[in-house]
Amino acid sequence: MGKKLSILGSTGSIGRNALNVVDNLQGSFDVIYLTANKNADLLIDQALKYRPKAVCIVDDSSAKKVESNLAIENIDVLVGRDGLLDIAKRQDVDLVLNGLVGTAGMEPTLEALGAGNDVALSNKESLVMAGHLVKDIQKKNDARLYPVDSEHSAIWQCLQGEEKDDVKKLILTGSGGPFRERDISTFSEITPAEALKHPNWNMGNKITIDSATMMNKGLEIIEAYWLFDFAPDDIDVVIHPQSIIHSMIELFDGSVKAQLGLPDMKVPIQYALTYPRHMQADWERLDLIKIGEMTFEAPNYERFPSIKLAFDSLKVLGSTPAVLNVANEYAVYRFLNEEIKFTDIPRIVEDACTKHEWIKLPSLSDLQELIRWSKEFVKSYV
Amino acid sequence: MGKKLSILGSTGSIGRNALNVVDNLQGSFDVIYLTANKNADLLIDQALKYRPKAVCIVDDSSAKKVESNLAIENIDVLVGRDGLLDIAKRQDVDLVLNGLVGTAGMEPTLEALGAGNDVALSNKESLVMAGHLVKDIQKKNDARLYPVDSEHSAIWQCLQGEEKDDVKKLILTGSGGPFRERDISTFSEITPAEALKHPNWNMGNKITIDSATMMNKGLEIIEAYWLFDFAPDDIDVVIHPQSIIHSMIELFDGSVKAQLGLPDMKVPIQYALTYPRHMQADWERLDLIKIGEMTFEAPNYERFPSIKLAFDSLKVLGSTPAVLNVANEYAVYRFLNEEIKFTDIPRIVEDACTKHEWIKLPSLSDLQELIRWSKEFVKSYV
Repeated sequence: MGKKLSILGSTGSIGRNALNVVDNLQGSFDVIYLTANKNADLLIDQALKYRPKAVCIVDDSSAKKVESNLAIENIDVLVGRDGLLDIAKRQDVDLVLNGLVGTAGMEPTLEALGAGNDVALSNKESLVMAGHLVKDIQKKNDARLYPVDSEHSAIWQCLQGEEKDDVKKLILTGSGGPFRERDISTFSEITPAEALKHPNWNMGNKITIDSATMMNKGLEIIEAYWLFDFAPDDIDVVIHPQSIIHSMIELFDGSVKAQLGLPDMKVPIQYALTYPRHMQADWERLDLIKIGEMTFEAPNYERFPSIKLAFDSLKVLGSTPAVLNVANEYAVYRFLNEEIKFTDIPRIVEDACTKHEWIKLPSLSDLQELIRWSKEFVKSYV
Repeated sequence: MGKKLSILGSTGSIGRNALNVVDNLQGSFDVIYLTANKNADLLIDQALKYRPKAVCIVDDSSAKKVESNLAIENIDVLVGRDGLLDIAKRQDVDLVLNGLVGTAGMEPTLEALGAGNDVALSNKESLVMAGHLVKDIQKKNDARLYPVDSEHSAIWQCLQGEEKDDVKKLILTGSGGPFRERDISTFSEITPAEALKHPNWNMGNKITIDSATMMNKGLEIIEAYWLFDFAPDDIDVVIHPQSIIHSMIELFDGSVKAQLGLPDMKVPIQYALTYPRHMQADWERLDLIKIGEMTFEAPNYERFPSIKLAFDSLKVLGSTPAVLNVANEYAVYRFLNEEIKFTDIPRIVEDACTKHEWIKLPSLSDLQELIRWSKEFVKSYV
């Protein structure tokens, strides 16, 4: 019997890579649950291949198709957001991989941990928005959280075998995105098409825009804060355009440990699934001689105000990181719809953070109200 | 009470740095023994500062001075090679740091391990020449070996928290020395003065020449073989002129872990003394933004035949690595004396390896005979 997996968001980029990992390690895993937002065709294919106990399709309009295709297959089909939350908390699994994108991924994390499930977390928003709730629920239910993001996986890997007390700081690397060298005075003219061309990583649209604004790094700073329990001042960001060093830790004796690799999400996903082991894989290996060169620069806050906004949000904590996250998410969608400029994104985010009614320890319903408020705030921005 | 240290070679580069570490971690260590080759003045100063039980001065002609200075201090003074071996095997210490340079450092390692002492090993030759004896004695006496070389310390640090079975290979980095880009056709004209200008590390003369020929890397390959038990084909060398990444491991899932730092021997020395902890130190920290760039190249065996000679010696093992080491050591001294050319060094080494009478598992007396033979062989080379 393999390790029993529940994969939330199985038709997305993380989910598909996770299933590649399952294929790679034939026999190591049993896929028990799969959930998708609306890609019915792929969910059906995956269900027929991996034979889970149940799947969930969140989008009602695709439900009929999934149900009719899996009816005779002895695979339960759940529908809608309730179905997703139901699957997240089912306890007949060893690990829940949360590969959901955006704010929608937060509640499933809380449900999974609340049921005592260990969670491999790709969904940044869970910690960014509800870090205090996640830590509480984790503690109460003795559930583990495994990072899937390449940066956090790198730090996690570097921390293996080390005492936390010996670690002076975390050093997150970031590629700097496609606009690292673009003239700042032209930033307001950046089009969605330009912002979607990411040089190193192949990701979804929302995350690719976050990478262009570097809000991605901002969210990762907040995520690192909650995952590893380091003060904001002990979390550094270094721009590393080649994305080979995925992140580092600096120890108190001056030794620095780094995790390196090709930009391939399968590596951190597999590690989260096989932790603490590094199992054989046949994908392309890092060849530093072929890479030839790695460079490093300081992050420029004028160019990338989102990083500073994230650090600032960590100083006040409470509801601010949640608002930062939601305002950013909806601002990105408005940018992708060409309704606002690239430079409006951090402006809206900052505005939302400043203007919302701050709450010290927002409950889940507070967060839901903050999501609604932030969405409305971004929508009304002209 | 601190950890009780015996420092062999306390007036050399490693020994002095180790005492800096002792100063840095005030109260963590008690220096019980110190030994020096012939620097009587510094040994006396060290003895008066650290108040060991005994010191040893190897060079007879300096003995009187040390004895007269320490007579009323209640610090025993041992003299000569026998005194050094006597101190190496004294068991009233927690750790023996072997900072001796060259072939002379081999026997003290065997004596220390034979007495069941843990050894922090900077002396490459111990493993290069007598790897099989070291491993045997270590096993019999349940003694640990801690690497001090920056490359091996890096690998050791990267291996913390990992299963050996998950590690696919070791990747040793090397600066490429001062002649990485020099026209190969002018190599025979290289003078000792040119070869002694090392761009990154500040070391003794013998090791600096080894760094110029890259025999240093060759010896490190052999050392890594014995320390970490990896097949020669699973040990790679990458040229990295900035010497910031001190070495790496590649795991089976494609993840690569690296240890980085400024070229400062105090870091690996302190780690060997404080293992498994990384204690606070105030020396300069690595700043990758200041470093700006790291580059990587393949090692060129035509330019650096010593690396290939070392790999070849690992394929036959037995007495060959020992002969390689001794022939190199004396060839380096002859080069420093301007008796032979830079390009003669690998030629002599290869010749000695080929022409010596090969022994499968040389005993200590075999090794002593091999040392004599190799020395003679190099001496007679014209």
